[in-house]
Amino acid sequence: MSEDRKITYKDSGVDYDRIDPLKIMAQRAAAGTAGNLAATGFSEVAESRGESAYVVDMGEFYVASILECLGTKSLVADAVRPLTGKTGYDRIAQDTIAMAVNDIVTVGARPVNIHAYWATGGSDWFSDQERMRDLVEGWARACDAVGASWGGGETPGLAGVVAPGAIDLAASCVGIIRPKERLIVGRELRAGDRIVIIASSGIHANGISLARRLAETLPEGYATRLSDGRLYGEALLDPTILYSALVQELLDGGVPVHYISNITGHGWRKLMRHPAPFTYRVTAIPPVPPVLAFMQAEARMDAAEAYGSLNMGAGFALFVPPEAVAAVIGTSERLGIAAMDAGRVEEGPKEVIIEPLAVRYAGESLNLRA
Amino acid sequence: MSEDRKITYKDSGVDYDRIDPLKIMAQRAAAGTAGNLAATGFSEVAESRGESAYVVDMGEFYVASILECLGTKSLVADAVRPLTGKTGYDRIAQDTIAMAVNDIVTVGARPVNIHAYWATGGSDWFSDQERMRDLVEGWARACDAVGASWGGGETPGLAGVVAPGAIDLAASCVGIIRPKERLIVGRELRAGDRIVIIASSGIHANGISLARRLAETLPEGYATRLSDGRLYGEALLDPTILYSALVQELLDGGVPVHYISNITGHGWRKLMRHPAPFTYRVTAIPPVPPVLAFMQAEARMDAAEAYGSLNMGAGFALFVPPEAVAAVIGTSERLGIAAMDAGRVEEGPKEVIIEPLAVRYAGESLNLRA
Repeated sequence: MSEDRKITYKDSGVDYDRIDPLKIMAQRAAAGTAGNLAATGFSEVAESRGESAYVVDMGEFYVASILECLGTKSLVADAVRPLTGKTGYDRIAQDTIAMAVNDIVTVGARPVNIHAYWATGGSDWFSDQERMRDLVEGWARACDAVGASWGGGETPGLAGVVAPGAIDLAASCVGIIRPKERLIVGRELRAGDRIVIIASSGIHANGISLARRLAETLPEGYATRLSDGRLYGEALLDPTILYSALVQELLDGGVPVHYISNITGHGWRKLMRHPAPFTYRVTAIPPVPPVLAFMQAEARMDAAEAYGSLNMGAGFALFVPPEAVAAVIGTSERLGIAAMDAGRVEEGPKEVIIEPLAVRYAGESLNLRA
Repeated sequence: MSEDRKITYKDSGVDYDRIDPLKIMAQRAAAGTAGNLAATGFSEVAESRGESAYVVDMGEFYVASILECLGTKSLVADAVRPLTGKTGYDRIAQDTIAMAVNDIVTVGARPVNIHAYWATGGSDWFSDQERMRDLVEGWARACDAVGASWGGGETPGLAGVVAPGAIDLAASCVGIIRPKERLIVGRELRAGDRIVIIASSGIHANGISLARRLAETLPEGYATRLSDGRLYGEALLDPTILYSALVQELLDGGVPVHYISNITGHGWRKLMRHPAPFTYRVTAIPPVPPVLAFMQAEARMDAAEAYGSLNMGAGFALFVPPEAVAAVIGTSERLGIAAMDAGRVEEGPKEVIIEPLAVRYAGESLNLRA
């Protein structure tokens, strides 16, 4: 394999250095609109700005909301369908809902209702009955799995905006935080807290541009066999785990959760999502799903690149006091999701240190807030 | 001008006959998830399914939510920019928010917070500082205008899903209906109610595919002069009127509003949006904005086609008892938006009759519900 197989995340078309200045400009303008709530008698939870979901104090309870997209995973489903004979749209429906729900539950919210956004490159998209049925059924099943009502949505044909034959999938979600003590914005996060890593099922829906770029360079593309005998393309389509039941069970059981980070774009750099200056020291890492190990090897990514952009087996991280670790791991395993006590929060400069890999991410490498 | 200039809405790439079966399949599956709310202690307002926004009864008040997209109007802004030297993105930011807000206020909701969805064909999009600033500033200004807090959003680069150089703009909105008596789902709609039509500013954001197709057939394209001397492309970018202040003032003032229809896709067929079998008899029509009169003439659309797909000067319709007409028109005019008593609701088969144009739309021509 030649050295030119090496692909960085930036090469694959996602350039966070370019996107982040707009995010920051938008975040500042957005913060300037908070005063509009005064006329409603409500107020925002200011710390929720820059968190994974926005939270409004509605008096008796908090209402959280979010809008998230799938990204480009639909292109993988389209490319893999001829190999497996399955559309995969039931799976990417779950991924799309996971993008919204796994974010909204990080603030302690319980999903209430979901809206669908399915924008196509033209009305033709809807002629494929099998794909259409898979999308609808997978969407409804994921709503059932997270206990939310599917309230409605948009199915526009956007020729010229969405690429021909493609679909842009996104979901919005409204959630409730009740009683109000369930709000999680990291006020209790402190040195000494443990970092409990909850397993991912595979790539989830982040790093997909890289996965697609890699497929183009492989002689057999998505049909390449992984170490476990599965097809690369098939494994990429393992749906994102829905972490809402885990969070609800923990909160229902009174388990103290100081902070939650959904590991998506920026990979393990998301462990330092909280704005406070702490050092996050990881002392044990979870098994790497074969599809991600394959991607790291084939794209010749070093550990810092791989863990800094992909989830590498860590789908979700809970920051809890030491006495809560057993309850978190036990609850997660009862739900069929592996979990491990992976490290600790320490006083120190803002950084993530992954000791077993000798990797360190400085605070400046995760620039999410204005 | 040759007869082949004639363009139907279907020719322009929007085929409602194809989209609606999916909408209906999705609506049925969505309705099947309503039971998930039981575990939250909440319940849905079942009539809100198929309405413009979804409503959940949260006890003390109702919470409405919605997710809507701009469509393809960003392509018009991009094409017109070289003619005017203005990006137009502040204007289409308002359009995008209007798509969500003008829908959510139809159920009597007051907008609380908004999320932005700005998906691009690649990170390059964000390099254009002027366009970026216009989008951010226009978005914040529209949030201020509707009294909502801009809570957050998504700015993904989706190469392969979104067309190169394009942007897919959408907005989600959460709104509050409080006191609960403000809920508008048409329970009070009855024969004898008046139809008050509130003016549009122009094309708003529906019929854009047709507008773009037409530009391609004109020798001077978007630079063609309208009867009022303005450029076709410039007039297309007049931002959608935000009707939220009108609805809030009417509800604050205790004016009885039996039903509201936001006139978007399907044009005036949206006057029969309510599920009950009534005849909607229009006896007077508002002035047609020059840009829409131009489109009708140039695309050789007859009245039935034009009013069945474009707003033709009617941006919003309120269905109110006769004694409320003066208050609605007076309030609207005080807000600077023309309004007129345009017709009445009658017992009879479900249809819209536009008497001055001898146009009739049968109930089956608006198939929005499962």
